[in-house]
Amino acid sequence: MVLNLPAEVDVREVGMRDGLQLEAPVPLETKLALLDALVATGVRRIEATSFVSPAAVPALADAAQVAAALDQWPGVRFSALVAGVGGARRAVAAGMTDLEYVVSAADGHSLANARRTTDEATAATAEVARLAHEAGGRCEVIIAVAWDCPFDGPTPPERTVAVARRAVEAGADEICLGDTIGTVVPGRLVALVDAVREACAGVPIGVHLHNTRGAGLACALAAVQAGVTRLDASIGGLGGCPFAPGASGNIATEELVYLLEDSGVRTGIDLAAALRAAAVAEQAVGHPLPSGLYRAGGRSRPVPRPAPSPGRP
Amino acid sequence: MVLNLPAEVDVREVGMRDGLQLEAPVPLETKLALLDALVATGVRRIEATSFVSPAAVPALADAAQVAAALDQWPGVRFSALVAGVGGARRAVAAGMTDLEYVVSAADGHSLANARRTTDEATAATAEVARLAHEAGGRCEVIIAVAWDCPFDGPTPPERTVAVARRAVEAGADEICLGDTIGTVVPGRLVALVDAVREACAGVPIGVHLHNTRGAGLACALAAVQAGVTRLDASIGGLGGCPFAPGASGNIATEELVYLLEDSGVRTGIDLAAALRAAAVAEQAVGHPLPSGLYRAGGRSRPVPRPAPSPGRP
Repeated sequence: MVLNLPAEVDVREVGMRDGLQLEAPVPLETKLALLDALVATGVRRIEATSFVSPAAVPALADAAQVAAALDQWPGVRFSALVAGVGGARRAVAAGMTDLEYVVSAADGHSLANARRTTDEATAATAEVARLAHEAGGRCEVIIAVAWDCPFDGPTPPERTVAVARRAVEAGADEICLGDTIGTVVPGRLVALVDAVREACAGVPIGVHLHNTRGAGLACALAAVQAGVTRLDASIGGLGGCPFAPGASGNIATEELVYLLEDSGVRTGIDLAAALRAAAVAEQAVGHPLPSGLYRAGGRSRPVPRPAPSPGRP
Repeated sequence: MVLNLPAEVDVREVGMRDGLQLEAPVPLETKLALLDALVATGVRRIEATSFVSPAAVPALADAAQVAAALDQWPGVRFSALVAGVGGARRAVAAGMTDLEYVVSAADGHSLANARRTTDEATAATAEVARLAHEAGGRCEVIIAVAWDCPFDGPTPPERTVAVARRAVEAGADEICLGDTIGTVVPGRLVALVDAVREACAGVPIGVHLHNTRGAGLACALAAVQAGVTRLDASIGGLGGCPFAPGASGNIATEELVYLLEDSGVRTGIDLAAALRAAAVAEQAVGHPLPSGLYRAGGRSRPVPRPAPSPGRP
């Protein structure tokens, strides 16, 4: 039996944004030390911060300062999340070129997260895409609550597909499906990926998963089997969403890398370096991280055999 | 894209044995209350206890008393784990008919766990199988450290395949591959399942997974894609192995059920009842369980929408 895995998967590190946004604010220099540790893992894409309301997300109020520091790591593609045109303008003014624009597929989450309906948020996509393209970058639309909304219940797939289709028509270069509250399972994941791919032929599709109900890595596996080659993950499993009750950490970068690399899928990320970065992240936030692999370590650490037993009881 | 999932998967609940063996001993009446809660989930197979050295595993020293109580739940197939012929005799004497005989595929773990080499343990399979069959039951051989041994490192696949082949030749009715220390990932899992199936044509193959490095449910998904229709899981994610440093909890029954049922695979297990059983288990052991789903709940609990926001900052 063949799992039909790709040769390579592109992991985007989102610990700096989704990981830190719920935490007590971390000093800028600590953030830059964590960024340095993340770059050292070999990861090629990093979501560096978000340009949203500092009142709503004080932990990322230093977005412009983070953006100003990114030039020191020229080999990495950094992106910034924005929730509207204003944030997109601020991001570009701060030097960011790759923008992730979040549109919630359900009105309940959209109103709580961005104070506008899905339609209103969708309508702004073209302007965000224009700003990114003018800056020489790319625009990705992240569709939040793509499967389930904490307020509205299951998101009808046609709503998510419609947001994706309109995003691409408005100039989005990439679509990312967000399992914001960590409810999706492999069967439902693959069904929606298929539907979005059909509606947006030729556009790269990524998936953003939370491990709230333990199914995060199983969904990641199903996603890459379904042809997704871009996965979000956060170091140590940091993460959550302040406007989505019940949401918990993202899938852990090091667990995803371990699973993929040991299954023969290249990520370009060094596991030992990722475990070191997780240690930096844990120190930065000051509490234990959810990652099991971070606690247990990799598999290449045989223990000395115990002394021969004296007999058989 | 189709995930190629089976219509049905048989989940065996192992919380009573693998879940409790590392815990401080739980009173018999508490165990029976947990068994009652587990039976109420609809699960069809339960590993009730093990007949091993009470000195080595004091938490299961009441195995015969547990066995004597099982007649009150006639609809469930109960099994007992044994590590040798002596334990098999005691299990049968206590009224058990379905036996799981553990053979470690690596000498390091075999010596630590059962004070004998893999060859010595394998040689006893025929007698354990004979005892089970004489009692009117079945004999399953669980191959521990099927992929990796904490002492010897990676287990050569041909060792695991040889144990499986010899087990079937000796009369085993079923093979279960144990990822004792939670190191396997989907790619390696499927490769070994394929090899064992080829060597043991027609014999049902199960998989026993630990979630030590976060990959447990991804491996469960890969296993059922590879044709495995029997998975071990423990309520709440209880579990571990006292003789395998670094081992942690089994995959959680309720997380597995959630993943499978919501992907269209029947388990016969009611999720709400499984969450109630997890609460009983948590109270029995007196500490939080690792299951994320147990903390977060299922997905059908929409939250009331927040009040309309006063404006857009």
